Amino acid sequence: MKKFILSLILAYTGSLLAQETVHQAAPKFSPVVNPDKSVTFSLLAPQADSVRIVASFLDSPLVMSKDAAGMWTATVPGLKPDLYNYRLEIDGVVTADPSNPYLMRDISTQSNTFIVPGENADLYITQDTPHGTLSKIWYDSPSLGMQRRISIYTPPGYNAPENKERKYPVFYLLHGMGGDEDAWSELGRATQILDNLIAQGKAEPMILVMPNGNAHRPSAPGYTPEGLYLPDMMHSVSKPGAFENSFMDIVNFVDANYRTIPDKQHRAIAGLSMGGGHSWRITMNNPDLADYVGLFSAAVRWNGHGTSPEDKFPEKEAELLKKQFERNPRLYWIGIGEDDFLFELNKQYRHFLDANSYPYTFHRSKGGHTWTNWRDYLVIFAQQLFK
Amino acid sequence: MKKFILSLILAYTGSLLAQETVHQAAPKFSPVVNPDKSVTFSLLAPQADSVRIVASFLDSPLVMSKDAAGMWTATVPGLKPDLYNYRLEIDGVVTADPSNPYLMRDISTQSNTFIVPGENADLYITQDTPHGTLSKIWYDSPSLGMQRRISIYTPPGYNAPENKERKYPVFYLLHGMGGDEDAWSELGRATQILDNLIAQGKAEPMILVMPNGNAHRPSAPGYTPEGLYLPDMMHSVSKPGAFENSFMDIVNFVDANYRTIPDKQHRAIAGLSMGGGHSWRITMNNPDLADYVGLFSAAVRWNGHGTSPEDKFPEKEAELLKKQFERNPRLYWIGIGEDDFLFELNKQYRHFLDANSYPYTFHRSKGGHTWTNWRDYLVIFAQQLFK
Repeated sequence: MKKFILSLILAYTGSLLAQETVHQAAPKFSPVVNPDKSVTFSLLAPQADSVRIVASFLDSPLVMSKDAAGMWTATVPGLKPDLYNYRLEIDGVVTADPSNPYLMRDISTQSNTFIVPGENADLYITQDTPHGTLSKIWYDSPSLGMQRRISIYTPPGYNAPENKERKYPVFYLLHGMGGDEDAWSELGRATQILDNLIAQGKAEPMILVMPNGNAHRPSAPGYTPEGLYLPDMMHSVSKPGAFENSFMDIVNFVDANYRTIPDKQHRAIAGLSMGGGHSWRITMNNPDLADYVGLFSAAVRWNGHGTSPEDKFPEKEAELLKKQFERNPRLYWIGIGEDDFLFELNKQYRHFLDANSYPYTFHRSKGGHTWTNWRDYLVIFAQQLFK
Repeated sequence: MKKFILSLILAYTGSLLAQETVHQAAPKFSPVVNPDKSVTFSLLAPQADSVRIVASFLDSPLVMSKDAAGMWTATVPGLKPDLYNYRLEIDGVVTADPSNPYLMRDISTQSNTFIVPGENADLYITQDTPHGTLSKIWYDSPSLGMQRRISIYTPPGYNAPENKERKYPVFYLLHGMGGDEDAWSELGRATQILDNLIAQGKAEPMILVMPNGNAHRPSAPGYTPEGLYLPDMMHSVSKPGAFENSFMDIVNFVDANYRTIPDKQHRAIAGLSMGGGHSWRITMNNPDLADYVGLFSAAVRWNGHGTSPEDKFPEKEAELLKKQFERNPRLYWIGIGEDDFLFELNKQYRHFLDANSYPYTFHRSKGGHTWTNWRDYLVIFAQQLFK
């Protein structure tokens, strides 16, 4: 019996080698996270003259060392718990590490992933807890005249018979420039974070809605009739206001198709960078929509008014924000890293809020405009919702 | 206004270069499918000594040529319409093409993807049609004592108010050795195929269920508490019978959570390779379960009996198949490529069916044990269901 299975495996593998040469097994898994949280990278490349690790967690590319057998190695000392991305530069070409099959796409770039466990990073791993459902679904947007792809997470137990009548709050979570409806579930680990926070009793069971914020595209690259094209930053920027003005199409779709509690007390909207700008504008345009607002490294004055942080705060937005804050949102949360290129813009905005005595919660973190921060902000923000 | 957006893009891009060095833009998109269906690959790699294309559509790795600027190029003449995978070998290292962000994982290998449009390949592209929903959901398997991740596609219109009472047939589609619940939706383009066939009126709207056939794992690599480990072929093989014997857990979950027509006339089960073996055994063990059976390059005698195709057909299975065929399944479909390493095994099995006058439909294709064939078989098989 075992012999038969083994022969089948051998035949299958042999067949693959002959028939599907792309399926060459990687010789070794890399990187290895060591017990002291150092991380060892390795690559068998006897013919290469130079191999370096290229990553945002390194100040500069790290040169790997080659042994007599052609095995290149390098160890990065004690990394703090997090999800990391990197690529390898092999004789000048920056590309994927073939020894690591875990990749994430950000705009046009695929980079490898590894996780140093512990602290928040344990929230980024699929643990042995109940799990929610992640759906890739298409909604009709009458405002934009197209069907659009959207990622929707329903929490563990949503389909259980005992919850058949239960209604849930909804958290709308928006991506940044160059992102799409896959960004928060992939780069942002949003489903793992929600599963884990809910299992630990730290977050309320909620529906998480992750739309595509680029109003002139229906969906992520690869999911359009164009087929496979090169995603780029410019392609991802739609006309200012176009997405924000179509946002109620999403809310209407979600309220019509899911068991939601369709009121202000049970809606949150947050976003990163451009999506922070979207959240900022959507909530001021619709002051009765959501009681929880999250601005993560937000392009708060995104939308075509003002060309520098020093400009006078625009009257129209001042008026809208006055109405929004008169309605006392329960949480107006601003998070940004001190090295973020939008830090000054956010500081100016906080001065405006302070000058008007509009209450908000400010979270200043280390670092800059990074997914490390955005995952952290999601973890912090999600715990404060609907309580 | 435009100036502000542009400055934000520049600041953002500049910030990324500084803060997230992994986000380097690919210099050029590759490959390009030319009007004559030749395909041109290019890679800027001035420091490399050798660049080759490694792919199952090539008899051997194709050497690329370098120009004075360090740009490597190669053109593959007239490829027939299909979805193709390839990798680049850069100074001896076989890895991803950094100029192509579209990748697919098969076991431990990520390979790049491109599509030569036309014929069936147009079915592999997300066209401007109504779209179904693809959900990654977890079901409880009492037989296996675990929660397990599963991919479920509901057809376009499933959630529309006018279909609120409508019930649908169900097609269970099983992967091969080394695969998982993501294999058919990614490598197999099953959601695009169903969307397109349904839009063209060639397939009935149906629910498509793609489980994980490795009974000792809950889910695809990366979706377990183990975190990120190296997937391998051996890890993917569970005890013979374990998955098949737990299959009713899946049927029960689907019938309890979706608007199904829960009878034999409205169920199909098909699978490729190991999954063909699973389909073979599940349907003989449960002769009243499904009227449509698809064996795609199937390991038909998978399950521990017989060690070579010449062995006498086992009595137990002969008895079970007798009962299955007494109940006249509407379609018993066998598809296999003439170069497939399982061709002889399938030939022996067809001799057994012929000797017993059990009716079946046989589709002999070119080629071997490949996703090219399995996508084709899905296209053919899906059009014959529930009519």
